[in-house]
Amino acid sequence: MRERLQSRIRDVPDFPKPGIVFKDITPILADPETFAATLSALRARIEQAAGERGIDHIAAIESRGFIFGAALADRMGVGFIPLRKPGKLPWKTRRAEYMLEYGSDALEIHTDALAAGERVALVDDLLATGGTAAAAASLLTEMGADLVGLFFVIELAFLAGREKLGAHPADSLVSYAGE
Amino acid sequence: MRERLQSRIRDVPDFPKPGIVFKDITPILADPETFAATLSALRARIEQAAGERGIDHIAAIESRGFIFGAALADRMGVGFIPLRKPGKLPWKTRRAEYMLEYGSDALEIHTDALAAGERVALVDDLLATGGTAAAAASLLTEMGADLVGLFFVIELAFLAGREKLGAHPADSLVSYAGE
Repeated sequence: MRERLQSRIRDVPDFPKPGIVFKDITPILADPETFAATLSALRARIEQAAGERGIDHIAAIESRGFIFGAALADRMGVGFIPLRKPGKLPWKTRRAEYMLEYGSDALEIHTDALAAGERVALVDDLLATGGTAAAAASLLTEMGADLVGLFFVIELAFLAGREKLGAHPADSLVSYAGE
Repeated sequence: MRERLQSRIRDVPDFPKPGIVFKDITPILADPETFAATLSALRARIEQAAGERGIDHIAAIESRGFIFGAALADRMGVGFIPLRKPGKLPWKTRRAEYMLEYGSDALEIHTDALAAGERVALVDDLLATGGTAAAAASLLTEMGADLVGLFFVIELAFLAGREKLGAHPADSLVSYAGE
């Protein structure tokens, strides 16, 4: 699985800025068998972490997280919660801000997205510095979610994003140890 | 199906600006049965339009289109093509610009997203004025796609977006005749 996935992840140098090597996942999406295998692997990790109690929702981060998260919610027969950039969700929202290398950004969730005690798995394509994922985890736990874990297709382990996630279990299908 | 969907679409007045009534789809996503029924209905419309030759890819527009499009691509076992806002896709792109009420915007596609002659269904959550959908259709056909149709969850028929789509077949699950 790891080799298959790695063969479908395209390195794009100097994107989004010079010196960064971007991990392009669109070749995974273009190949139905690899996309399906990725979803199966994520589902297995989530089910293992959730145990017998299962989950009530998949939450995912705009925009690439939606691709994996929505298909997983459909496969697992659970609700889908979109976490979006500020001003995108139309109803009442709660917001978490987080620091970027230069400046800050934020994520929002609808205040009726989940009930306290409901079990949620967070899905995104990439764990990099961990700022976005940590903000997403904060939003969900502030809402009272029982966060069973954070699940990523790719982890850039050399950026140590996992250290920002506190005690929440985190898992990834492909981890890169160096740039 | 139409009644079920309508009961899960939340009207949010004055979003994103005064006088606009926004159709919020997050209650559809929160309810696994309604989300599944929406995907089944979209799939049936796509399969009817595609006929025996089927499709090779689902293309969807960032961000909400990804939610429905990716789950459909997974269900149908076809490739998924993301159409994104400028500067988001990391590799070589083709761009289509379109006019907004004030100013303009654009969509991009990776130049290796599809091969000439491949059959594509375009999916988005909402057909409003049709500018974004028309740009997406242009991008796909300029790439040589055989566009079997454009498929929407919701159509705001009073905005006449369908008139911008030329001869491409367009279909929606719920159509609103007036504001």
